[in-house]
Amino acid sequence: MTLVGIEAVRAAAARVAGRVVRTPLLPCLWADDARPLWLKPENLQPTGAFKMRGALNAIGMLDPATRSHGVVTHSSGNHGQALAWAARAYGVPVVVVMPDTAPAAKVEGVRALGAEIVVVSPAERDARAAELATERGMAVVPPFEHPDVIAGQGTVGLEVVEDLPDVEAILVPVGGGGLISGIAVAVKASLPQVRVIGVEPELAGDLAEGFAKGEHVSWDQALTSRTIADGVRLPSVGELNWRHIERLVDDVVTVSEQAILDAMGRLARSSRVVAEPSGALTTAAYVTRPEAVDGRTVAIVSGGNADPALMARVLTSST
Amino acid sequence: MTLVGIEAVRAAAARVAGRVVRTPLLPCLWADDARPLWLKPENLQPTGAFKMRGALNAIGMLDPATRSHGVVTHSSGNHGQALAWAARAYGVPVVVVMPDTAPAAKVEGVRALGAEIVVVSPAERDARAAELATERGMAVVPPFEHPDVIAGQGTVGLEVVEDLPDVEAILVPVGGGGLISGIAVAVKASLPQVRVIGVEPELAGDLAEGFAKGEHVSWDQALTSRTIADGVRLPSVGELNWRHIERLVDDVVTVSEQAILDAMGRLARSSRVVAEPSGALTTAAYVTRPEAVDGRTVAIVSGGNADPALMARVLTSST
Repeated sequence: MTLVGIEAVRAAAARVAGRVVRTPLLPCLWADDARPLWLKPENLQPTGAFKMRGALNAIGMLDPATRSHGVVTHSSGNHGQALAWAARAYGVPVVVVMPDTAPAAKVEGVRALGAEIVVVSPAERDARAAELATERGMAVVPPFEHPDVIAGQGTVGLEVVEDLPDVEAILVPVGGGGLISGIAVAVKASLPQVRVIGVEPELAGDLAEGFAKGEHVSWDQALTSRTIADGVRLPSVGELNWRHIERLVDDVVTVSEQAILDAMGRLARSSRVVAEPSGALTTAAYVTRPEAVDGRTVAIVSGGNADPALMARVLTSST
Repeated sequence: MTLVGIEAVRAAAARVAGRVVRTPLLPCLWADDARPLWLKPENLQPTGAFKMRGALNAIGMLDPATRSHGVVTHSSGNHGQALAWAARAYGVPVVVVMPDTAPAAKVEGVRALGAEIVVVSPAERDARAAELATERGMAVVPPFEHPDVIAGQGTVGLEVVEDLPDVEAILVPVGGGGLISGIAVAVKASLPQVRVIGVEPELAGDLAEGFAKGEHVSWDQALTSRTIADGVRLPSVGELNWRHIERLVDDVVTVSEQAILDAMGRLARSSRVVAEPSGALTTAAYVTRPEAVDGRTVAIVSGGNADPALMARVLTSST
């Protein structure tokens, strides 16, 4: 299984330039002096998450004839919105297969971006997406296990290196592993000594367990779905993603549910950004895992599509 | 009274480069198609407001001998924090004279940045700051009525023009008038057709009234302090600021208190940024004053130091 190369990430950067927000690094005055911290606020992308980068690159990589038939995916979360947005940017049709359990707000968000929505039972999602691909000649763009998606997410890493060449550690949330795979490729190519550290909730710590054992581990969905961090409730990282992670990532740490909530509150109060639980994982690791996070550190704030009631709760609970 | 020139703003840009965050423009998917909207999130600056730009430039403009004696100001709000931060960046002493009515959190914020704090009754603030300046040879850096402060704030305008050369309207919150004066100088120099529009709360509409009359109007502090937008409760813009505004600004509009609260909620929910009430003024104008705001629009989100309890409230009230 070939890993994504740095040239693919550089090509992706050219492809997404001007279409995604070039997010700055935000220095945190509240950080420890000995461990300066910068946030990379990907929650400020138009659809509220880094996912647009991979979606745009994957559509851009299709040959024009295939692309004109459109794209299909079965993610109900941030990837669904990102793909809908990216397809609109390219002016091609897009179908998002959503489970009948998806919240109305998420369905509306995808519909507002012009996507066709097909609602099915959760068990039918994969099959229905594959069917649509065959019937309509559409390309499937999966949320994380695809080289073009990984290359697109890697553009986050290129920007970190460009903005902070003396970075020492980068904290990256892990669900399916697309973001950390891309960032690791991008960063290690020019700065191999930088520590790329994955962060998971304790309640969905499949990669932390697998990384320690050196094997690709899956957890039961009933376990991983316990965490409040809905963006990373997957049973495991993708196989292609695992290959990148075992080769390029330096460490994987876990954080508690309380640490995630506290980090959401801190990000809103002290850094003035709204992070969803998955987006606050890295700040939680910075705060509660100091033994694992040292030196000049960047925390990727991956998304900001938080439930307003939850945001209100973390703002009023003291830390 | 000479207006600040574009050369001064360009020189300020060189002076603040690398010290302030180069904030991006954030396209808003929730905006009207006919009136695309971008946010300029200055709430993401390290101290939570654009004020660092003016403070840095003012300190940078001092001759080194004067600068070494340090700086003093009497603002209790975002300017106090910004000056403390900027003085630390230059390694010079700083005194912030604060009223004994200032919230403990704001006093702590300034102290944490290494400033010496002198607490006096509100009536004594100006006199005490002037006294300290004489006693210790410190330079007074006022919050808005100073050409170097105006030039520093103008760097926001240069960045807007650079990132969106076909911008048609820029919405700017108005308190003392430092930000809008600087932005108007910066923008009109290269794009004179762009409409620069000031935004005030109805309850602190001194400039809106004065602008309509063509004279520099003051309101009683008892009136202007009614608004929830604590950053713009000043009785009037500065005299120097008024000269810039009457010459360069195209319109001044006002918004209701409810519109401000709704805009704070919308910014958090749909654009994932925490704005304080003054920082949400421009979004409130975009939403509630469509007759005054047309074309490709940029809204300056000036600051994000919002009370967490208020943020929680706007997140849970429906819009």
